[in-house]
Amino acid sequence: MLFDRLVIAGVGLIGGSLGLAARERGLVREVVGFGRSEANLQVALDRKIIDAYTFDPAEAAQGTDLLLLAVPVEATGPVVQQFLPFLPAGCVITDAGSVKEQIVTIMEQLLPATLPFVGAHPIAGTERAGAAAAFATLFEKRLCILTPTARTDPAALARIRGLWEGVGMRVEEMDVRTHDQVLARVSHLPHMIAFSVMNAMLETHVAGLDLLAYAGSAFSDLTRVAASPVEMWRDICLANRDALVAALTEFEVALRRMKNAIATSDDEALSAAINRAREERQRLTRLREKT
Amino acid sequence: MLFDRLVIAGVGLIGGSLGLAARERGLVREVVGFGRSEANLQVALDRKIIDAYTFDPAEAAQGTDLLLLAVPVEATGPVVQQFLPFLPAGCVITDAGSVKEQIVTIMEQLLPATLPFVGAHPIAGTERAGAAAAFATLFEKRLCILTPTARTDPAALARIRGLWEGVGMRVEEMDVRTHDQVLARVSHLPHMIAFSVMNAMLETHVAGLDLLAYAGSAFSDLTRVAASPVEMWRDICLANRDALVAALTEFEVALRRMKNAIATSDDEALSAAINRAREERQRLTRLREKT
Repeated sequence: MLFDRLVIAGVGLIGGSLGLAARERGLVREVVGFGRSEANLQVALDRKIIDAYTFDPAEAAQGTDLLLLAVPVEATGPVVQQFLPFLPAGCVITDAGSVKEQIVTIMEQLLPATLPFVGAHPIAGTERAGAAAAFATLFEKRLCILTPTARTDPAALARIRGLWEGVGMRVEEMDVRTHDQVLARVSHLPHMIAFSVMNAMLETHVAGLDLLAYAGSAFSDLTRVAASPVEMWRDICLANRDALVAALTEFEVALRRMKNAIATSDDEALSAAINRAREERQRLTRLREKT
Repeated sequence: MLFDRLVIAGVGLIGGSLGLAARERGLVREVVGFGRSEANLQVALDRKIIDAYTFDPAEAAQGTDLLLLAVPVEATGPVVQQFLPFLPAGCVITDAGSVKEQIVTIMEQLLPATLPFVGAHPIAGTERAGAAAAFATLFEKRLCILTPTARTDPAALARIRGLWEGVGMRVEEMDVRTHDQVLARVSHLPHMIAFSVMNAMLETHVAGLDLLAYAGSAFSDLTRVAASPVEMWRDICLANRDALVAALTEFEVALRRMKNAIATSDDEALSAAINRAREERQRLTRLREKT
């Protein structure tokens, strides 16, 4: 048993799936849910994701040796402040946020040395949200990035590594800035694109038709993540602003180059651009088959 | 039996799948393949997609009452010209191209009244290509758009409708211009985005890391169609230039609006944009569940 009592603040897709997986693998003895929505916590209880839930941080904190913050990025600081007066010394605190520099900086300012924090980002998810969407195998074979700093407690780091490896993830360490730069490209940018495609459709009118009625699998797959939760993604945009703006600009340049090749009927430039993209996408398929 | 002898020019994903499906449903008696690559035609023969193949248009045309042109858009005219001297009167000619105005215009210029043409676009596909990727259920429950004009022979139109309905498709008629405007948004634009994301990745460097190694399912799904065939997509870009440039501009506007909201940390504009996109994407999910 790696931890005795796990409190999950935010029993959504990530928090809930970790609850299921950690119990199934025997990594924790007791799991307690904490959140805003009683309906969601009741779903978590019914699905045996948690043993109990509470809205009282003092009650939740009692005897807890692991606090997982699985709430939207901007809520992470405020939630930990609610718990701060009540957490027993030695309780390990970790998170699952998609942006790391802001969270890690805030945590290191807020927390005393007796409450070790380890920043973590399990790269797994679907566009669905809430305890109802949680499933125990979500993390299997996926990558978890830990973002320790000079201040990170090595023993806590090892235990958090053990937790995510224990639910089947590959674990890699990265500094917070590099993490945020990488995720801006491979995750945050794709979400902004999906949202923007849907918004462009809303403003486009062709012969009075409902364009979505003609969408095939290319459109459907491209926009799948546009159904993701609003608050979560608003917070990621705000917290990773500079890296995300840079990623958007890089993409705009590549898109404009493609558009110019089309507008000028430049068949050689088009063939070259499509071919480069295709080979790189085939490399991604091979990478994903290996892992 | 709807047709006696079907010649498929281009036994790829679409042509090959129609061969399999049409025979399985008893819509055609004999299927003959025509193409450039003997290796691909041999695969089609081995997979029983076709009964025979030939590189000789005269031989292929003999006794044929249905010619399916399933080649890249720009090749459609040249291929039909090879067949033209040999096709028996009454042979119905159809295509499966993703752009209709250019193809239909060329066909109506080339073909005599004794060779009725019906423009068709079965909206189905994957990013894979060739006879090896063909499968009989590709068209089931998907939409096929027919683009008849004032010159289209009603009997030929009815038979082509019967063919695509026979392999399980819903069939809808549309004028060529509307078709090209719609497809620019729901299919061609998503492909350009996928190609451009891959190309942007190739030009981005973060701490010497291979960014693709950190891609999750959002990135993978968003870029899936970037592995699509080069020639096919170069031709679609060239043939649907104006509508595609317009669609790209609409998307650029929506993307820039999102980027500005992020750059100015405008949380209300961000929430509103994400929420609109999310609701529209959820509407797409409901539409797709209904069909």
